[in-house]
Amino acid sequence: MTRYDLALIGFGGVNRALAELIAERGSELEDELGFDLRVVAITDLRAGSLVRPDGIDLAALLATAPGELDFSTLEGGSCEPRNQQVIQDGPGDIVVEATFTNPADGEPALSHVRWALEAGKHVCTTNKGPVALHGRVLKELAARHGVGFEFEGSVLSGTPILRTAGRLLAGLRVTGVEGIMNGTSNHILGRLEEGVDFPEAVREAQALGYAEADPTADVEGHDVQLKVMILANEVLGADLRREDVRCGGISHLTPADMRDAASRGLRWKLVGQATRREDGSVDARVVSAALPADHPLAAVSGPTNAVAFHTDLLGTVTVSGPGAGRTETAYALVSDIIAIHQRHGAAGTHHLSKESFRG
Amino acid sequence: MTRYDLALIGFGGVNRALAELIAERGSELEDELGFDLRVVAITDLRAGSLVRPDGIDLAALLATAPGELDFSTLEGGSCEPRNQQVIQDGPGDIVVEATFTNPADGEPALSHVRWALEAGKHVCTTNKGPVALHGRVLKELAARHGVGFEFEGSVLSGTPILRTAGRLLAGLRVTGVEGIMNGTSNHILGRLEEGVDFPEAVREAQALGYAEADPTADVEGHDVQLKVMILANEVLGADLRREDVRCGGISHLTPADMRDAASRGLRWKLVGQATRREDGSVDARVVSAALPADHPLAAVSGPTNAVAFHTDLLGTVTVSGPGAGRTETAYALVSDIIAIHQRHGAAGTHHLSKESFRG
Repeated sequence: MTRYDLALIGFGGVNRALAELIAERGSELEDELGFDLRVVAITDLRAGSLVRPDGIDLAALLATAPGELDFSTLEGGSCEPRNQQVIQDGPGDIVVEATFTNPADGEPALSHVRWALEAGKHVCTTNKGPVALHGRVLKELAARHGVGFEFEGSVLSGTPILRTAGRLLAGLRVTGVEGIMNGTSNHILGRLEEGVDFPEAVREAQALGYAEADPTADVEGHDVQLKVMILANEVLGADLRREDVRCGGISHLTPADMRDAASRGLRWKLVGQATRREDGSVDARVVSAALPADHPLAAVSGPTNAVAFHTDLLGTVTVSGPGAGRTETAYALVSDIIAIHQRHGAAGTHHLSKESFRG
Repeated sequence: MTRYDLALIGFGGVNRALAELIAERGSELEDELGFDLRVVAITDLRAGSLVRPDGIDLAALLATAPGELDFSTLEGGSCEPRNQQVIQDGPGDIVVEATFTNPADGEPALSHVRWALEAGKHVCTTNKGPVALHGRVLKELAARHGVGFEFEGSVLSGTPILRTAGRLLAGLRVTGVEGIMNGTSNHILGRLEEGVDFPEAVREAQALGYAEADPTADVEGHDVQLKVMILANEVLGADLRREDVRCGGISHLTPADMRDAASRGLRWKLVGQATRREDGSVDARVVSAALPADHPLAAVSGPTNAVAFHTDLLGTVTVSGPGAGRTETAYALVSDIIAIHQRHGAAGTHHLSKESFRG
């Protein structure tokens, strides 16, 4: 049986949900997928770092409330996150990066990914920043080191958007791609439709935990901008920088706009779009748009997100599903590990070659 | 370069569209997918059969109007379809089955598929019958002969439904699946919503070429019944017979029903559903149902079809796209060939091993 040793970088909601999945359903995954998962290192800004090359007891760890975790009290633990040291010199076949990202330069996630790839370790990440801003360089780095670099969770959590584009639409020419890719703004638009004005809808979303204290990234399209870059680069082979993607938001919209649109059979949505131009280049933007009822994205409501692929032979194929959520995003990491196993499993990692000697 | 030799069984709309794709974009597919496609045999109820082990000149063939084709006038041609002989003894690595199917026993497509698998040839088919009624036996037969058996086009033409279930949702527990899987009935429901009564909507659909002279299979749910069986068997591991799937239709619905539903925020749809019961068994049915506006299938209109997968970790993931169409269905065959290449390409077919000797 193949086994992958994981180093979890960041132990917030997503990687904790991944640890829960492994603890609760590891043996089922093993039966179904043909590999076993073991966590051998965890780093976290608050809890410190924990390194156990023989495997961390996840059940014991998960019995402690998130805010109470202190790795320094455990064998192999330290109060320092020591991200660089753990990624570069610690155990682990796959580095699972789920920290946070600065949309200007992609740090600190970018460095985590780079260190791991340079150390010859597979990487999966849920962070948009490194993928949107430096995806091409990181993919080249992964190829050079013969390791996997997977990031399904960077767009629509575990909803299989990037893999649909990459695997299921092979042989098609994709002429454009557009999506509703921010659940917070989509929820706020739904409340505007119900007559709530914009400032109140934002306050509600904040109270529900959907919106940040500063909602700018969600409602002004900056979050969608990074996702459009990822889609345009992955699906249309573009190489866009952030300044190439015009960015609009929804803060100018009112309940009256919603009623007016509805009377004409339209619905306002915040849409990220990328289209191939006649000359082969790619035009990408984030816009608030009043979509006709028969548009494939018009009915996508609330926390559900969706991406529509416009193709030559199939017309439009749309995939919709959750846009966020800790378990949903942790599943994206599982699907990344499955992809790494499928592409690199036969060739084997360091760990795997050890396994084959043992077994 | 790997090359696959194809035997096309049936030369109606779908396989003719496949031949057009190969003639027009073969070299592009070659660059993108890493294999070359050549057609070495074609059989057709009207045109007869044509066998050319060195490859058929598709451009010349496609220059002739469908109704005018007469293979007996060509070298290697005969006025007889000779399906069994061509499938069993003729050239070809992959048998591409796109004839027709009797929903009671799956013939003649079933025999075509069986002959091909028993002859050690890969099969892709767009026919629901053999898959719905005898899928398990045929898959075992394919496994025993070490060949591929692919049938993405049997549900929603080229829209990647079965592959989404099989590949992209790995590691999830699918608890249920439901879909709008018949474009004709969905179009008719749309017309009822616009105030046209049922008999008139059927006559219109017949005039547009959407509905058959006998519309029963579309409007009474029999077509969807076979698709539900395929989904239930593939996605939920069921082994359903036709009599296990309760079957309802839309012929009892009126414009008044549509208005009444709309006033309550509902939309009537013909839905095929399969759900896993508590005891692990699978309950499947075709029903007309008034869906609430926020149901993932409620907004699916006209020729667009959709399937929603209900899962444990991701909630609901929905894939929508064309439900029919000759080019769309021909693309399903291309995607099947890609799948055969990915799973069996390395091991090689007879043809491939010849290739490797040639160098």
